[in-house]
Amino acid sequence: MDSAVTSTGPLGPSLAAPLVGRLAIVGIGLIGSSIIHACKARGIAGTIVAIDRDPAVLERCAALGLGDERTGDLAGVAGADLVVLCIPVGAFAAVAEAMGPHLKPGAIVSDVGSVKGSIIAQTRPHLPAGTHLVPAHPVAGTEYSGPDAGFATLFQRRWCILTPPEGTEPAATALVEGFWQAMGANVEIMSAEHHDRVLAITSHVPHLIAYNIVGTAADLETVTESEVIKFSAGGFRDFTRIAASDPTMWRDIFLHNKEAVLEMLGRLNEDVAILSRAIRWGDGDTLFDLFTRTRAIRRGIISQGQDAAEADFGRRHAEGAEGAAGNPTSDKPAGA
Amino acid sequence: MDSAVTSTGPLGPSLAAPLVGRLAIVGIGLIGSSIIHACKARGIAGTIVAIDRDPAVLERCAALGLGDERTGDLAGVAGADLVVLCIPVGAFAAVAEAMGPHLKPGAIVSDVGSVKGSIIAQTRPHLPAGTHLVPAHPVAGTEYSGPDAGFATLFQRRWCILTPPEGTEPAATALVEGFWQAMGANVEIMSAEHHDRVLAITSHVPHLIAYNIVGTAADLETVTESEVIKFSAGGFRDFTRIAASDPTMWRDIFLHNKEAVLEMLGRLNEDVAILSRAIRWGDGDTLFDLFTRTRAIRRGIISQGQDAAEADFGRRHAEGAEGAAGNPTSDKPAGA
Repeated sequence: MDSAVTSTGPLGPSLAAPLVGRLAIVGIGLIGSSIIHACKARGIAGTIVAIDRDPAVLERCAALGLGDERTGDLAGVAGADLVVLCIPVGAFAAVAEAMGPHLKPGAIVSDVGSVKGSIIAQTRPHLPAGTHLVPAHPVAGTEYSGPDAGFATLFQRRWCILTPPEGTEPAATALVEGFWQAMGANVEIMSAEHHDRVLAITSHVPHLIAYNIVGTAADLETVTESEVIKFSAGGFRDFTRIAASDPTMWRDIFLHNKEAVLEMLGRLNEDVAILSRAIRWGDGDTLFDLFTRTRAIRRGIISQGQDAAEADFGRRHAEGAEGAAGNPTSDKPAGA
Repeated sequence: MDSAVTSTGPLGPSLAAPLVGRLAIVGIGLIGSSIIHACKARGIAGTIVAIDRDPAVLERCAALGLGDERTGDLAGVAGADLVVLCIPVGAFAAVAEAMGPHLKPGAIVSDVGSVKGSIIAQTRPHLPAGTHLVPAHPVAGTEYSGPDAGFATLFQRRWCILTPPEGTEPAATALVEGFWQAMGANVEIMSAEHHDRVLAITSHVPHLIAYNIVGTAADLETVTESEVIKFSAGGFRDFTRIAASDPTMWRDIFLHNKEAVLEMLGRLNEDVAILSRAIRWGDGDTLFDLFTRTRAIRRGIISQGQDAAEADFGRRHAEGAEGAAGNPTSDKPAGA
């Protein structure tokens, strides 16, 4: 390695010049803090302003060294070239209204929200003429929340979807695209409406189902909660992982992507009805066909780097899995 | 480390004497091969006979050194003190019938099937008097199948449920209990009926729902399969992991645990209906309450060692996650 490149970090060498002079991040949770880590690691922004209304979060930011400046006041967006709102989907109207008057001419407003149609509708009316709105959604995350949960490589090789409304200045879109690419993400551009439908099936409905099944299990009269926990290795524990996500964030997602979520839930219910009947009638072929088909999608996800191929059996991967880590590629069913 | 204890492996030192003189494993898939690895690692059995009807599987066993003896013939159970059937739930009647006449007096027959009531009903009529049936279900696994997928520590700190029918010889139950404990498992004893209900909610229905949601996603007209794969990091990929499990095994589970699975699906549907209405009516409190409640179950699972606390974001844990591995404990929602 060239010893002159002293600043090479996990995301690669720093940029020759910052893409963004002054960057304001509003809401320092998992995503907001990860953006700050990534921007710092690659020199993507000249100055980073960390804004959060919660004094406890700002205190953690100070302890973690997150942000060159920190404030609880939305007036902190003043002078920012790019403002990224990392807040629950339900908070956009109020935050945009409070922030709007402080934006400098030419400022670009972006976000990381999981629903795009509603965010555009909430935000746009409050942005002064001469500013730009380029909504974004990095499809990345963990089940943890808060400023301590962030890390610089969260977005690496993950997709970030931009949904610029018609008429958006191409240069503004290009800047946000470059911003995410510099953090290691792949960028795709689509309409807000299509985004909300795609995410309903790849993210929102899976979370709702996971929350639901964990809730149902906790309410059964015939099976104790202690049994559910003990025997969770049979598949249930994978649901609890995503059912541990931030409640406020997810409540807002469902309230603001109502139509697409209800449409996908309807489809799911039809398919559950078909499966239930196959079980009731002892129709093994229908079950086997479905169970075979779904493996192909899993293979696509692994081959495109969106999940690890290693067997997951609920332990640190380093811990006593010499065989599992080495031989996870067999796809053959047991023969007997 | 004491240099005299040369045989200390990942499961601890070998037993002073084998628990089982002659052990026959029928069906060398993920579970069967893991049992062989674990028994070898701790000296649990004197001689291990690996039995599989598929010549390709036996060939892999030979290459991997699995089993002291290998055969495709169920007569291979002759002389075994303990026979463990590691076969799909639908295969028990035929295998028990073919194997029964070869069992020696006093032999204990056990298994690893995911449904217990049906297995007892299928197996019991074919066992000669003087032999013992002690059904077992190790609640452990990965999404991989076949003899290459097994490893010695799979059962460590996992639960194994025994469901001895009423009247079972206590000594036979005790031997099977000791067998699983020697492989590192915790043992719990319950009725087959209760087992089938507990597993319906902790394992069978989660798998059915995962298969279902992956299937629904693949069939949508408005969202392409390529989009589903690209944006799977939003939650969907966790479902594809368990929807990649062995199709034959799972088909049989649903056909043989029909009543409990349909009962739990019914409960789940009621709860989905309540959630759908909350979304339709914009009732955020109902959603928030559920999403908060489910976190507690997750905490129970982690504190009881049934899953790792590390953030899972679909990559090798060693790869570029310095922050995530170190700080996964924050439970605070974003404050802004």
